[in-house]
Amino acid sequence: MKVVTFGELMLRLSPPGFERLLQSPALVATFGGGEANVAVSLAQFGLESQYVTRFPSNAIGEAAVRALRAEGVRTDFIARGGSRLGIYFTETGASQRASTVLYDRAHSAISEIPADAIDWDRVMNAAAWFHVTGITPALGDKAAAATRAAIAAAKRAGARISVDLNYRRKLWTEAQALATMGPLMRDVDVVIANEEDLQSVLGVEVEGVDVTSGTLDVGGYRRAAERVTREFGPALVAITLRESLSASDNGWSAVLWDGGSGTLHRSQHYAVRLVDRIGGGDSFAAGLIYGLATGRAHDAALRFAVAASALKQTIPGDFNRVSVAEVDALAKGDASGRVQR
Amino acid sequence: MKVVTFGELMLRLSPPGFERLLQSPALVATFGGGEANVAVSLAQFGLESQYVTRFPSNAIGEAAVRALRAEGVRTDFIARGGSRLGIYFTETGASQRASTVLYDRAHSAISEIPADAIDWDRVMNAAAWFHVTGITPALGDKAAAATRAAIAAAKRAGARISVDLNYRRKLWTEAQALATMGPLMRDVDVVIANEEDLQSVLGVEVEGVDVTSGTLDVGGYRRAAERVTREFGPALVAITLRESLSASDNGWSAVLWDGGSGTLHRSQHYAVRLVDRIGGGDSFAAGLIYGLATGRAHDAALRFAVAASALKQTIPGDFNRVSVAEVDALAKGDASGRVQR
Amino acid sequence: MKVVTFGELMLRLSPPGFERLLQSPALVATFGGGEANVAVSLAQFGLESQYVTRFPSNAIGEAAVRALRAEGVRTDFIARGGSRLGIYFTETGASQRASTVLYDRAHSAISEIPADAIDWDRVMNAAAWFHVTGITPALGDKAAAATRAAIAAAKRAGARISVDLNYRRKLWTEAQALATMGPLMRDVDVVIANEEDLQSVLGVEVEGVDVTSGTLDVGGYRRAAERVTREFGPALVAITLRESLSASDNGWSAVLWDGGSGTLHRSQHYAVRLVDRIGGGDSFAAGLIYGLATGRAHDAALRFAVAASALKQTIPGDFNRVSVAEVDALAKGDASGRVQR
Amino acid sequence: MKVVTFGELMLRLSPPGFERLLQSPALVATFGGGEANVAVSLAQFGLESQYVTRFPSNAIGEAAVRALRAEGVRTDFIARGGSRLGIYFTETGASQRASTVLYDRAHSAISEIPADAIDWDRVMNAAAWFHVTGITPALGDKAAAATRAAIAAAKRAGARISVDLNYRRKLWTEAQALATMGPLMRDVDVVIANEEDLQSVLGVEVEGVDVTSGTLDVGGYRRAAERVTREFGPALVAITLRESLSASDNGWSAVLWDGGSGTLHRSQHYAVRLVDRIGGGDSFAAGLIYGLATGRAHDAALRFAVAASALKQTIPGDFNRVSVAEVDALAKGDASGRVQR
Amino acid sequence: MKVVTFGELMLRLSPPGFERLLQSPALVATFGGGEANVAVSLAQFGLESQYVTRFPSNAIGEAAVRALRAEGVRTDFIARGGSRLGIYFTETGASQRASTVLYDRAHSAISEIPADAIDWDRVMNAAAWFHVTGITPALGDKAAAATRAAIAAAKRAGARISVDLNYRRKLWTEAQALATMGPLMRDVDVVIANEEDLQSVLGVEVEGVDVTSGTLDVGGYRRAAERVTREFGPALVAITLRESLSASDNGWSAVLWDGGSGTLHRSQHYAVRLVDRIGGGDSFAAGLIYGLATGRAHDAALRFAVAASALKQTIPGDFNRVSVAEVDALAKGDASGRVQR
Amino acid sequence: MKVVTFGELMLRLSPPGFERLLQSPALVATFGGGEANVAVSLAQFGLESQYVTRFPSNAIGEAAVRALRAEGVRTDFIARGGSRLGIYFTETGASQRASTVLYDRAHSAISEIPADAIDWDRVMNAAAWFHVTGITPALGDKAAAATRAAIAAAKRAGARISVDLNYRRKLWTEAQALATMGPLMRDVDVVIANEEDLQSVLGVEVEGVDVTSGTLDVGGYRRAAERVTREFGPALVAITLRESLSASDNGWSAVLWDGGSGTLHRSQHYAVRLVDRIGGGDSFAAGLIYGLATGRAHDAALRFAVAASALKQTIPGDFNRVSVAEVDALAKGDASGRVQR
Repeated sequence: MKVVTFGELMLRLSPPGFERLLQSPALVATFGGGEANVAVSLAQFGLESQYVTRFPSNAIGEAAVRALRAEGVRTDFIARGGSRLGIYFTETGASQRASTVLYDRAHSAISEIPADAIDWDRVMNAAAWFHVTGITPALGDKAAAATRAAIAAAKRAGARISVDLNYRRKLWTEAQALATMGPLMRDVDVVIANEEDLQSVLGVEVEGVDVTSGTLDVGGYRRAAERVTREFGPALVAITLRESLSASDNGWSAVLWDGGSGTLHRSQHYAVRLVDRIGGGDSFAAGLIYGLATGRAHDAALRFAVAASALKQTIPGDFNRVSVAEVDALAKGDASGRVQR
Repeated sequence: MKVVTFGELMLRLSPPGFERLLQSPALVATFGGGEANVAVSLAQFGLESQYVTRFPSNAIGEAAVRALRAEGVRTDFIARGGSRLGIYFTETGASQRASTVLYDRAHSAISEIPADAIDWDRVMNAAAWFHVTGITPALGDKAAAATRAAIAAAKRAGARISVDLNYRRKLWTEAQALATMGPLMRDVDVVIANEEDLQSVLGVEVEGVDVTSGTLDVGGYRRAAERVTREFGPALVAITLRESLSASDNGWSAVLWDGGSGTLHRSQHYAVRLVDRIGGGDSFAAGLIYGLATGRAHDAALRFAVAASALKQTIPGDFNRVSVAEVDALAKGDASGRVQR
Repeated sequence: MKVVTFGELMLRLSPPGFERLLQSPALVATFGGGEANVAVSLAQFGLESQYVTRFPSNAIGEAAVRALRAEGVRTDFIARGGSRLGIYFTETGASQRASTVLYDRAHSAISEIPADAIDWDRVMNAAAWFHVTGITPALGDKAAAATRAAIAAAKRAGARISVDLNYRRKLWTEAQALATMGPLMRDVDVVIANEEDLQSVLGVEVEGVDVTSGTLDVGGYRRAAERVTREFGPALVAITLRESLSASDNGWSAVLWDGGSGTLHRSQHYAVRLVDRIGGGDSFAAGLIYGLATGRAHDAALRFAVAASALKQTIPGDFNRVSVAEVDALAKGDASGRVQR
Repeated sequence: MKVVTFGELMLRLSPPGFERLLQSPALVATFGGGEANVAVSLAQFGLESQYVTRFPSNAIGEAAVRALRAEGVRTDFIARGGSRLGIYFTETGASQRASTVLYDRAHSAISEIPADAIDWDRVMNAAAWFHVTGITPALGDKAAAATRAAIAAAKRAGARISVDLNYRRKLWTEAQALATMGPLMRDVDVVIANEEDLQSVLGVEVEGVDVTSGTLDVGGYRRAAERVTREFGPALVAITLRESLSASDNGWSAVLWDGGSGTLHRSQHYAVRLVDRIGGGDSFAAGLIYGLATGRAHDAALRFAVAASALKQTIPGDFNRVSVAEVDALAKGDASGRVQR
Repeated sequence: MKVVTFGELMLRLSPPGFERLLQSPALVATFGGGEANVAVSLAQFGLESQYVTRFPSNAIGEAAVRALRAEGVRTDFIARGGSRLGIYFTETGASQRASTVLYDRAHSAISEIPADAIDWDRVMNAAAWFHVTGITPALGDKAAAATRAAIAAAKRAGARISVDLNYRRKLWTEAQALATMGPLMRDVDVVIANEEDLQSVLGVEVEGVDVTSGTLDVGGYRRAAERVTREFGPALVAITLRESLSASDNGWSAVLWDGGSGTLHRSQHYAVRLVDRIGGGDSFAAGLIYGLATGRAHDAALRFAVAASALKQTIPGDFNRVSVAEVDALAKGDASGRVQR
Repeated sequence: MKVVTFGELMLRLSPPGFERLLQSPALVATFGGGEANVAVSLAQFGLESQYVTRFPSNAIGEAAVRALRAEGVRTDFIARGGSRLGIYFTETGASQRASTVLYDRAHSAISEIPADAIDWDRVMNAAAWFHVTGITPALGDKAAAATRAAIAAAKRAGARISVDLNYRRKLWTEAQALATMGPLMRDVDVVIANEEDLQSVLGVEVEGVDVTSGTLDVGGYRRAAERVTREFGPALVAITLRESLSASDNGWSAVLWDGGSGTLHRSQHYAVRLVDRIGGGDSFAAGLIYGLATGRAHDAALRFAVAASALKQTIPGDFNRVSVAEVDALAKGDASGRVQR
């Protein structure tokens, strides 16, 4: 089964352990990016995962290709050109000290992608699913145009389409986000978001939620999801619920609204001791896409997605290095962490 | 006081931190193995600790000798020969993600140990204690024969004998385990096990225990221990109780059944934030042997064993790098972790 | 605003992660010391931070200067001479295993500081604050004499003076501490201590406190602080309250007694997942000095100090690598640790 | 252009820098193996490089697939099964101290490859070239049978066939090597070897060569190559000439005998400061295959091969991480090592 | 003595040892840049070294300030603003494999420096020397304007002025370079270059030099230097002579033309086993500036400069971590490398 | 065969690779010391190697014991007490930059060794050889007294005695050295030295040698050795000849004067590419002791010693990690460094 993703992969640079940036003259250098993280998960889950982006023709671009290929992601349609790969620096927080992300992504190859760089109909040929996040159109006019072209081609090819709203305050305003993302929603089958994204991108407030304290009111989520379906179109709305107790400990769960049947599915809940929470939302999206695309029931797909993303948050780096069997083992209930010999 | 142990030492290869295997091109390379871990603890506690095994005559075998010698273990009776040292790969889990152990131990030097490789009566001369685990006879017919020969010689030498059942599903079936281990029990003074080992090796079920949830019923442990004494012979039965809350947090305690007086001693309980739980059971066995061999009362020996093994689980690697003084400080009650200046 | 500190900076050598000393042939090499840690914090907070000490004229002394200069500390008045820089080895504990500190500081350059090495009136010129700990006079007669000279000059210059009692059992007896520190108190404006320091240095017991269990009685702190003001002179007495639940988890808060108004301020409380607690007390002192010296109200200064020191305990190394903005963000209430993008 | 290779990929474990094995508890973990190294080079050079082997179905096998895929090697036909991946340990020597290789490869998955594990005709479909080394049939009867089947299928498919003799004393005797390799030569187009391989595998002595001193007599190489063509069949015989001045410095060049025209081509010569010479011969083979398969003249192909393998010996790990452009730049004459900005 | 430098400091990211970029997921992260390297050297030599640049107001900019401050460089006049710090990636070559430098410096803070960002007259107040390279004006119109303003202010302040031509093909054409740099030469006292820079920036060819082979003709250097003085103005012209034998071994020496007396000084010659040649030219410039600024004779200053830069090339990173005493020891003739105890 | 050595073992701290001290916050931590290095070599060569010293009773002293025990050195007679272990910092130089050693050894446990700490007659019981260097008596009066007592006891026990003169300028003057070492020579069988030691300790000049340039005149060595035998007594005098071409490349050879037969043996010569030259002289002493103690002829023992010490200089750390077989292979002539598979 072929799944296509489109977005920005960046070089990720992190200090060792819990150090602050450049406290020591060493950086852990990996790669990450919203859709790429989804692509890697889907490849690990055994699907044919085609990732589309634009890389510069230099040693960093080559290394990015190598990183994707290693994980089994297909790189056939990656365009080459532009001057640089975006970079982001990240510190791992602990306890009361928050993790930080510092972007150096302006002028990246994908943000300057020409209109004719990708032959979208060829890319989408026989694709069962297309996934993109709200980050990609926020990279600039050219990336937004490419996103629109990709969605249109996916639609023509009969692929299902998911969008993770992923609002990035540094890239655009809420007004700009709504103006761009709103119209795209018509063609979208599944919207993925957290409560802040819903508010910032679609202007849909989740009532009764206090992000900092982690207080949750399921009713608020249902009403918000209903509004998304009613006002913007997508039948499925998945919302992740992160209780930020500290930079070391988070609660983690999600709901999935099925506008067709009017059902709100609520997932299992995990108390996660965080190793690396970057990419947590992407691993949820990938789990959900995998579950839905392979025909699992809505509640089972949700359960799989939450288990997958709990595991991700215990693994260093953006990528979720787990198999379907490992996710299923957790989803089926063994969260004891007993040694597997 | 001379203590003898016999078993397999392996090269242990682990990825750095919480990474998955070969996520980075680096492995932490140490050594570990059930009886060797006990031998190291006992040497650190100041006993004359003789470890018997078979190593190949190559650079890896030499490094294994160096690792043991560094910790003060006597290597006088280690046989040389065979083609390879066993290897095991281990990942450190976190939260909902379990730690994993992947064995590459087939055809190891000890599994092919010739019948005449060790002069067991010379080894056991003046020994006060002999310890072996259920892993060693599971390595194959030759290792099982050597185990029987060792126990017989220990008996002749008047040494007390302890066995840690340590069932390994990858090495043999439950039926094979019972057929081999059952008869050995006659000569054993102290049996050490967790509830799964009792079931798998001796067919003795511990009722009222749910491993995954960590629910414990002391009565079940008493009944199981009584059965071991009654049906198999050993007067002392120590059972460790691990509550696997997650791969990051475990509850840890133990009971010691004294068949002679019909007493069940229950230890203190620790909530352990795990650093490395591999070798936890071995450090318990070593603590118990040390306590009993040096004449401490049963409940004090049990208390020492549980404190020793709690400390082990906070130290990277298989070996328990603590002194008697450090264990006693914890056993006497200061679990506050205040800085020792 | 110019702040002066005086004390011993040492080379700090630690094994990687949770290893015990020299388990691997590698040491993390940084620098640390009570007053130097305060000096670094104050420089990071934007004050003109002059650190006074004595360094040997060799590559290690040069590296110490580099480390201070990097953090923005002014090194203009550091004397050169003597034969060595003090060293301390530290292990990071976990769970039931305590962190350890092993000193190799005898015969350090500062412990042999000649009477004329520092022109204290020049140093204190225009200084707004002077800070020293009880460690410095404990280093020996010469260091004690220098401490007295520094305090006298600070007084002449009109600087406010703070002392962190910091009792070190390895350096002197309680009787010696009282004989030296007691008379100094007359010139001190702010005393900083924990309950053990009060008892050991000034003979002032805090009643109703059980250090190991973490039981706290605020009334006891009030009475102890009142006694310090009454018997020794300082109007402000800050006491840190550490609940040592384990080597991994501590409770952290503080009180500030204002002898002038007869008010006891009690701070917010943090449950800290420890990364590195060495330097925690120093970061509290720096936070308090910053708050008081820049004119914040007593309760706000206390709040800032506790937030600053909670953050420190999540950062490897002695130094508190945080900005005023980061401390204020936590002090204002966001302890959720959400990712800062 | 499709090129197929077949052989054993092993986990390669090396101590850091110039350390001896397990001097520190750390190993650099990469992958390597004769044909796999060729496959990686050819993928880097832009050919469609299909590598065939057998991997165990476990985390180490998965990591091996990831390593190959990262470099662009196609893994479509890799069989899964067996119990382990072979391992080799290697130390990097310096000056008078030789590099060492210690194999732990017995019982590897490929050595136990079933006769029907690979559908060779499907593998060879449309292949332009097939390459194998003398190591693969030396792994045991099953691997030898698979090698024969592969060569037969390659022949049927019209692919050109190259063999690197690569004698391994630990795997078989010279008599065994000749009995197996001799008959295979009939179907081989290009033989690659050094003077020791020619002697040990085919019994063809190169006269006038003193391996240790590095004395070379071109006439001896010509006569030996002529004999290979005459007695065994292959028209092209490439012989690498390594002058082992020390473990740090080698001379490096090669000759190519064209039996068709009776011409001996002699390459350029490099004085190589070694970084990692493991894989040097494989990178030569890959360079030669690339040159010949893409239609370069014999002398140009030889020149390319020697330049490629000189570069390999300056790069850590078995794999030759260079592009055609980089090799051509060196082959065209710029060996100055000036910084490329 | 106050010396001012102005230019771009970049984050330098390098793989460990001789690896190629991102062969492992680790980068060594330091800082470097032409003028900054000079500034660090001069600070190490004991001068008051003021470095002027523009840094973004983020964690990377802070780390850059820390790196400079650590080495004793004064950062008082560094402007803050812009969006990013330039980055460069560098691989360390060996033998026939060249070192590489890959720039990601477009849109850096300094390349967008506003005209009023620096108060140049305040900066140059009491300065004895100003140094800049040809890289800075090549960064763009704003940086070129700032360079012109800096030179004009230096002239007004009576400082001597040196320029290292440092041609960068990726930043501008030879025609652009001449158009910008030619007019600046009028105010310059000392020009520093290699033979390629003279050709590319000033159009002055050094005859009789074959860069790749390392053949040198002193007469050609004399004639080229004379032309620079005659046609462009600067009285002193220093030319470095690098014989690139390989990426591991270089010959290193220099000449200094004194247009006033019509003398060509030729330096000592070193055969350098390279550790890190990046920054070699900058360390030469710094040595020459130090020698000339502190009143050493021309030949002694040249000798000091060549010794300083030979040492630099044995030290990892851009910065030359040596003292005047260490340089003088080498310049006086002891190149034996005997252990200094 | 039992060999006894007595001296100071220190903690050795080195920056990674070619970095200067504390350029990065990391130190490689091993152990080394003249006699300990000899003891390790002899243990590796298979002799019973008893090392005597005094260690503090702390974690660093424990780690030192572990390091010795790992290498097979017997630690039965090591005294415990005193306050610290000596430390030395060392940088690895390259090319024109010298390696450096910075000592922090004052007040070490052994320098304060009480007169009754060691029962020397028990230590020397059945010893065949005793070895000490000139460093040990230079540590202070107590260490000198212990050295005298050790030599006297060795003499009583009939052991042969060797002394490596090893002059340390930082520890004593030449006059002090002669006053202490001269009288000891009467009981010494073998003196080991380089030409500087002979001059500084015994006042015996080697004529015709220019240390820096590496010019050697064998006649001068013969005359100097003859004088040592004639004036001080020892029949055998071994002198190592190091040609310091640079910090990267040294020539290495030695002579052995046999005063009994009036023969000067001259060794083979190696051009050594240095990895770590610290401990080179000690590995020579160990090789010579091994050769002589096991009854090899004088010229063969010398050849073995020079080969052993050439290998040492290619291995990181003070210890010479080679076997007798490896040394013999080199001594017999294969210096080609070809890979050992």
